[in-house]
Amino acid sequence: MTKQDIIEQILKKQSFLCVGLDPDLTKIPEHLLEKEDPIYIFNKEIIDHTAPYCVAYKPNLAFYESQGLQGWLAFEKTVAYIRQRYPDQFIIADAKRGDIGNTSEMYARTFFDAAKVDAVTVAPYMGEDSVKPFLGYSGKWVILLALTSNKGSMDFQFTEGENNERLFEKVLRVSQQWADDDRMMYVVGATQGRMFEDIRKIAPKHFLLVPGVGAQGGSLEEVCRYGMNNQCGLLVNSSRGIIYADSTEQFGEAAREEAKKLQTEMAKMLKLYLNKTQ
Amino acid sequence: MTKQDIIEQILKKQSFLCVGLDPDLTKIPEHLLEKEDPIYIFNKEIIDHTAPYCVAYKPNLAFYESQGLQGWLAFEKTVAYIRQRYPDQFIIADAKRGDIGNTSEMYARTFFDAAKVDAVTVAPYMGEDSVKPFLGYSGKWVILLALTSNKGSMDFQFTEGENNERLFEKVLRVSQQWADDDRMMYVVGATQGRMFEDIRKIAPKHFLLVPGVGAQGGSLEEVCRYGMNNQCGLLVNSSRGIIYADSTEQFGEAAREEAKKLQTEMAKMLKLYLNKTQ
Repeated sequence: MTKQDIIEQILKKQSFLCVGLDPDLTKIPEHLLEKEDPIYIFNKEIIDHTAPYCVAYKPNLAFYESQGLQGWLAFEKTVAYIRQRYPDQFIIADAKRGDIGNTSEMYARTFFDAAKVDAVTVAPYMGEDSVKPFLGYSGKWVILLALTSNKGSMDFQFTEGENNERLFEKVLRVSQQWADDDRMMYVVGATQGRMFEDIRKIAPKHFLLVPGVGAQGGSLEEVCRYGMNNQCGLLVNSSRGIIYADSTEQFGEAAREEAKKLQTEMAKMLKLYLNKTQ
Repeated sequence: MTKQDIIEQILKKQSFLCVGLDPDLTKIPEHLLEKEDPIYIFNKEIIDHTAPYCVAYKPNLAFYESQGLQGWLAFEKTVAYIRQRYPDQFIIADAKRGDIGNTSEMYARTFFDAAKVDAVTVAPYMGEDSVKPFLGYSGKWVILLALTSNKGSMDFQFTEGENNERLFEKVLRVSQQWADDDRMMYVVGATQGRMFEDIRKIAPKHFLLVPGVGAQGGSLEEVCRYGMNNQCGLLVNSSRGIIYADSTEQFGEAAREEAKKLQTEMAKMLKLYLNKTQ
């Protein structure tokens, strides 16, 4: 998918919501556990109820891998289902991979050739040659960790180097030499509030994938006030708040309601901030 | 496995070799491709021929994931085979994972509960709460990326913060507050040469997992001169140099010869440096 395709979907749906598909067998409705493939059935139900209100889905690989073979199969089936039924949705494999060149190349094949997702999240610690192999696929995206939503983001990401440049700022600056804003996005946690201002100084045009609204406590309004650009430039993710809104047989409807609420908020934000920014 | 168990194996075998099990279908002997499970058969052959000369095996997950379900199955079968047949071998899942707490918890379950490996490599970028979930398993290890073997290690790992402390040094220092040297090791690339001196100033007692000897050009002698401590403190990995030493039906014997050569070198290094260090 191109950047223009994503923007079109956002304007059409008045939503920049990404739904995180993080199925945990200890949290999904109990009645599903008797089924043959509970993770896939759970995902399918969530997807069918939320698709009108979101523009992207983000399965986090950890939740699939922890279920072994069954989990991988459910991941592949989920991606194939979205691809076929909702071809306009942007699919992000939240994998946070990154390894030496020949190994990253294997990961890139896994996600882009085999699973056919649109984007993969990648960790920047190992530098350029660990990220580049993911950039060799036409129409596919790298979403690089910059400033994450968790408490541990304080440990290393704020380390100040030359000219008081913090590590996450260096990641934003240096990685722009590897690809443009039509191939690369950045992860910035919603919990980082006003930091979005600093990030927009370095990466004014890039899309940012923003986790941390909802269960992790980030404010959608703040993210939009400081982070939205004139092409929206945001994909805001919610996982637990939507997919575990209810644990009865009505979990699909409950997920729809939560997604719809967020979409309604997002439509307001687009009205407020989309054309008031640079 | 405890630190003492690892040291005992090293002294007994006079080897601190870790064999990297990175099976690539485009590189393994052609006659195996006709078999039902070529990756597992390849690994089994490599393991049976190298086990007397090494103390650890390190499957890199990328090479298994890229083969989809078949690959995951081959990974699980490989780990189970080593566990059962060579219980003294230390098994490292080279996965370079790291995510927010609840997600890292899922990855920890995947590798320690389901796959039953001894150690997982983890990326430090997201900080303490992304690493801690891996430390909650008795007898299991975290191997944290510190200074990697690739060219991209120059991009961020040498960023100098307060008091000229470089990022990899900060990772070594800060992470020691999370666990001791009986639960945590560090990845340091063999290509980093004299940097091992600086690393030993901060982490004198820790085991270091050292990739980059062989195909990547690191020197075993240099690694030992600057990196060995009085408990050895090194697990030196070789992947391609051993497992692809030959592409005929004799690949097992060729792998044995390469592993034996490295073990012979390592025995010399232990004689030279083991008791001459602090």
